[in-house]
Amino acid sequence: MTDYTQLEKCLDYQFKNKDLIIEALTHKSYKKPYNNERLEFLGDAVLNLIVGEYLYKKFPNSNEGDLSKIRASLVNETGFTKLAKEIKLGEYIFISNAEERNKGRSKASILSDAFEAIMGAIYLESGLETLKPIILQLLENSYDKINLDVLFSDYKTALQEITQAEFGSIPEYKIEGSYGPDHKKEFEVSIWIDGKTYGKAIGKSKKLAQQAVAKIAIDILKGKTNE
Amino acid sequence: MTDYTQLEKCLDYQFKNKDLIIEALTHKSYKKPYNNERLEFLGDAVLNLIVGEYLYKKFPNSNEGDLSKIRASLVNETGFTKLAKEIKLGEYIFISNAEERNKGRSKASILSDAFEAIMGAIYLESGLETLKPIILQLLENSYDKINLDVLFSDYKTALQEITQAEFGSIPEYKIEGSYGPDHKKEFEVSIWIDGKTYGKAIGKSKKLAQQAVAKIAIDILKGKTNE
Repeated sequence: MTDYTQLEKCLDYQFKNKDLIIEALTHKSYKKPYNNERLEFLGDAVLNLIVGEYLYKKFPNSNEGDLSKIRASLVNETGFTKLAKEIKLGEYIFISNAEERNKGRSKASILSDAFEAIMGAIYLESGLETLKPIILQLLENSYDKINLDVLFSDYKTALQEITQAEFGSIPEYKIEGSYGPDHKKEFEVSIWIDGKTYGKAIGKSKKLAQQAVAKIAIDILKGKTNE
Repeated sequence: MTDYTQLEKCLDYQFKNKDLIIEALTHKSYKKPYNNERLEFLGDAVLNLIVGEYLYKKFPNSNEGDLSKIRASLVNETGFTKLAKEIKLGEYIFISNAEERNKGRSKASILSDAFEAIMGAIYLESGLETLKPIILQLLENSYDKINLDVLFSDYKTALQEITQAEFGSIPEYKIEGSYGPDHKKEFEVSIWIDGKTYGKAIGKSKKLAQQAVAKIAIDILKGKTNE
């Protein structure tokens, strides 16, 4: 009998239906009448919604194309494998001896599928509102260090390419101020191109504020919004 | 001021936040600071989950591949356009004069996007459990009885269980012919159990025709209809 105490602790969630959890942890190689593929189907849809809604609320000014791109960078095999490792899910998966010898326990596809299946199982037994904070906590634990910088890393580079072509110069970012207590500080940054400012943005780090204001400048230069 | 009474009646739902509904009904051609693309992003994910969960529960014996295929046949532009027309959504959409002249109000892409957006809006203001019965009711209204039976019931599996118990054999399906142009082909399939045929059926794919003819055989074997 497997002990799920550590897994439950990592998830800050207590499983109700152990059979469902076993199904979620059973890879098809294990040759049981059940495996985790159906729960994975469900989990995939739930994760897509939870991450989608999170980004929808987090980025009120991003358009649907940008939201889709950011979500695609989180909701994929690599992203879910990262989260699966965060909760040491590999230790609990049921796989065949052959898969075991083949290092199946640390394979991205197996980990990612089991992660989706576990989330599908929690959704089934406890519903969306219980699952949401579990996922968001995992995301924040896993992406805290690199934060959303990575997700936005394209804007500064993209803008620089535009301004070099159009003005023969690179953008300048100026810190206008910082607000809030140390552990929750926010920064306001303005952007200047060829002696003219294109806007300001606030972010949880200087880098994030720069990325946000770079996006504003790109939109203006591309004529997407009025100055 | 648009009157949403009829739309609310069709949905059996009363909008709470009229601004959100207006956003959901606003096509990008209407040139407002907002449009329905962000809500469409959210609605798409919610619909995928609701239909996915419905199929997961309705077909306890179907594998993930079959569930994905059935969902894909419902969750797409054609499917959502059908549902949008069911609630006469076209009458309420805000589009530009140019789109109006261009018959935008009945365009599949515009209707489907607005449908997703409206569902995204209902999800945002009232949550998943409120939205579920609305979607399932619309699906049931829009797909006629036979289609639903075929789509939502695993007749082939059910029939196989019956014939194994009664005859010690499994049914055989034979393709009798295919009709129509490539993009709109239909297949005719006959069913044979223990050396005897139980009927023929036509479907938009071999699988759908097999499901339909399996249903016919089940009814005959269960004595529901005369041979």
